[in-house]
Amino acid sequence: MNVVDIIRKKRDGGTLSREETEFWVSGMVRGSVPDYQVSALLMALFLRGMSDEETATLTDVMAHSGSMFTPSDLGGYTVDKHSTGGVGDKTTLVLIPLLAAAGLKVGKLSGRALGHTGGTIDKLESIPGFRTDLDRSRFLDLVRRTGLALADHTADMVPADRILYELRDVTATVDSLPLIVASIMSKKIAGGAQAIVIDVKTGSGAFLPRLEDSRRLARALVAIGAKLGRKMAAVITDMSQPLGRTVGNALEVREAIETLQGRGPEDLATLCCELGAELLVFSGRSPDHGSAVATLRALLADGSALAKFRDLIAHQGGDVRVIEDPGLLPQAGDSIPVSARAAGTVRRLDALSIGRAANALGAGRTTKDDAIDPAVGVEVVRKVGERVEATGVLAVLHVNDPKNLTEARRLVESAYDIDQKGAPCVAPPLIVERVQRGS
Amino acid sequence: MNVVDIIRKKRDGGTLSREETEFWVSGMVRGSVPDYQVSALLMALFLRGMSDEETATLTDVMAHSGSMFTPSDLGGYTVDKHSTGGVGDKTTLVLIPLLAAAGLKVGKLSGRALGHTGGTIDKLESIPGFRTDLDRSRFLDLVRRTGLALADHTADMVPADRILYELRDVTATVDSLPLIVASIMSKKIAGGAQAIVIDVKTGSGAFLPRLEDSRRLARALVAIGAKLGRKMAAVITDMSQPLGRTVGNALEVREAIETLQGRGPEDLATLCCELGAELLVFSGRSPDHGSAVATLRALLADGSALAKFRDLIAHQGGDVRVIEDPGLLPQAGDSIPVSARAAGTVRRLDALSIGRAANALGAGRTTKDDAIDPAVGVEVVRKVGERVEATGVLAVLHVNDPKNLTEARRLVESAYDIDQKGAPCVAPPLIVERVQRGS
Repeated sequence: MNVVDIIRKKRDGGTLSREETEFWVSGMVRGSVPDYQVSALLMALFLRGMSDEETATLTDVMAHSGSMFTPSDLGGYTVDKHSTGGVGDKTTLVLIPLLAAAGLKVGKLSGRALGHTGGTIDKLESIPGFRTDLDRSRFLDLVRRTGLALADHTADMVPADRILYELRDVTATVDSLPLIVASIMSKKIAGGAQAIVIDVKTGSGAFLPRLEDSRRLARALVAIGAKLGRKMAAVITDMSQPLGRTVGNALEVREAIETLQGRGPEDLATLCCELGAELLVFSGRSPDHGSAVATLRALLADGSALAKFRDLIAHQGGDVRVIEDPGLLPQAGDSIPVSARAAGTVRRLDALSIGRAANALGAGRTTKDDAIDPAVGVEVVRKVGERVEATGVLAVLHVNDPKNLTEARRLVESAYDIDQKGAPCVAPPLIVERVQRGS
Repeated sequence: MNVVDIIRKKRDGGTLSREETEFWVSGMVRGSVPDYQVSALLMALFLRGMSDEETATLTDVMAHSGSMFTPSDLGGYTVDKHSTGGVGDKTTLVLIPLLAAAGLKVGKLSGRALGHTGGTIDKLESIPGFRTDLDRSRFLDLVRRTGLALADHTADMVPADRILYELRDVTATVDSLPLIVASIMSKKIAGGAQAIVIDVKTGSGAFLPRLEDSRRLARALVAIGAKLGRKMAAVITDMSQPLGRTVGNALEVREAIETLQGRGPEDLATLCCELGAELLVFSGRSPDHGSAVATLRALLADGSALAKFRDLIAHQGGDVRVIEDPGLLPQAGDSIPVSARAAGTVRRLDALSIGRAANALGAGRTTKDDAIDPAVGVEVVRKVGERVEATGVLAVLHVNDPKNLTEARRLVESAYDIDQKGAPCVAPPLIVERVQRGS
């Protein structure tokens, strides 16, 4: 077999076989297929597209390109959740202890922030001492014993995805649905989950803002996961405004803790229970969605999920005192309010602008080598449908370095669209659509 | 400007501007645009295509990527000829002294053989002592003083083409009409010719065997050259059977000398005069095609062209005695006839099989680092329409290494299709079609 023939086949619209896919992926990982051939193939894949079967094959071959976890490694019914990324999306921080409290096994491999969306690893690392660089045996031991662990993607897992991701970024081949699906699902497959729920965000703050694109991605993820024998559900959820009321790493950890204490924002708690319920039903622990939601609500209310979060922090080196004393989390030097110019009701609150404002303050990364400031961010005091008085506070900027303060303030001001005429303003529904397929 | 944006634009079917084309080509030559970005762009160019305007821009930018010649460097009316490559195609050896004899300036940059088609450099280097590694000042001096010089493409001319050619070869992006046109024409433009004639071969031994493809290539070459201010003509000529009666480097030099002596095969002499006439008319030295052909015929007949060939050999270090004594050219150890199995008339003589047979004997290259044997090749004793007696000789193999002799014999035997029933067999017309456009 020969890579030029494989490229030519795809160039001419052919469908790559498993053998051909294994040949180029393993050659790429070993270094025998150089990046200039991979990038020509990526462009051909981008422009010619891939069938579901072909995408599932690529996903599976990528998943097998490095070390993997199996359900038996993890010692129980293994579940995972993936979000396509949003602004103020601290769902994972609440959901994984909640799932562990429900008796499921959550060995979560997560990433860092890039662009205007946050990353779970960065958020957890704002807890003093918290470490995500667990080795394989420690990670497996924690999941088996406590039900949960959260680690950075390690170099030995899905190396094919890392190589492809870097090449796609510099060759304008990022926005290919099959390549996106293969990237997301290969990591989930390698992680060993039997059931997977995908939170596909839609709206301005989402990776794919348009509902039709979100829907296409959701369906493709479910289809490919199901082809590879996983129980799959996708929930399309609103990201036209930020989730909860905080955007920024330590600010979001604080809000997650409040939610685990039963006093967080309702949208966040609802989303966690809706996503978790899909997995609980798949596992057979709940007979239907309604009872699964009720079970999860109870585990939030009785402190079981909070206890699991405390275990997670303790086992991964973090300072558990942050739960009772959030003041131990990094705090920004200044809190600067952004006020309304006139009384009215919030008609729209643009998630993307808020995400960019938090980034301008230092909460996120533009390139993967940027440093982030865990303390800074934006507190969203008013959300869609809520009333504000003239000169009332819309949001609070948590600031350390005043360099981009003007830019951040401008972005937050532009994010708010205030109706002054008293027309009714209704928040968009949180759960937009569900896509589900058992394997 | 940013290469990823340029790739994305082409990926989405956009047309690259001159500024964008200069950005990526110059970055590639300088090394600031890595090959993995170039290869993604090549695949996008391949699949999305390029407008004539865009192809002309790429051609011009490639031509300017290194050092160039201008008509004033060469000191007269500058002309050039390009062949898309054929079997037994020694046209350049006859045509360039013929053009110089007509008073035109021919500073020819040529290439080596690859695949089943020969290369002019390899042919001339079979003359003992002949050198093609002229430096710039020697090359220009020869053209100015004697009217002709022939050199290898030097590293400092059109470096963009060399890089692109190597990448296209390993990324399945060779067969793109605009990229082929840009590769051919950038070298012609950099060579400084005011008028250019292209010999586009068609038939089994051609790079593009099908007439419709040859026609498309011919039209594109003429269109792009004209856009860049060159007088352009293309002649589509038959390559279903070999040109002349010899295939192999020293064998072809001998046949070229015979043609310059007025006793070569008629098809070769005709082709040289037909191609040369286009340039003579462009230069204004002849009023029309017919008188240009007559002028060139006379220069062949009176020994003027032969005298220029003698100058060429002498000035480039070769042994001029080969003209009177072709036995000084490399000679193969064995001459092995291939005989007919029955009497009849040659209905078809497949150029590709003859080219492959010559290569099997060592006359050509499969990869660019292969050594060639200048002495070996195939002498075609019978061509289409000619009669052969039972056991009469069809062809003669000139052999040094018997390793692939069986293979070569099989190829030559399979190349001949003999009609035994006496049906009339007519040779295909040499000149198939003309495409012309003055700038």
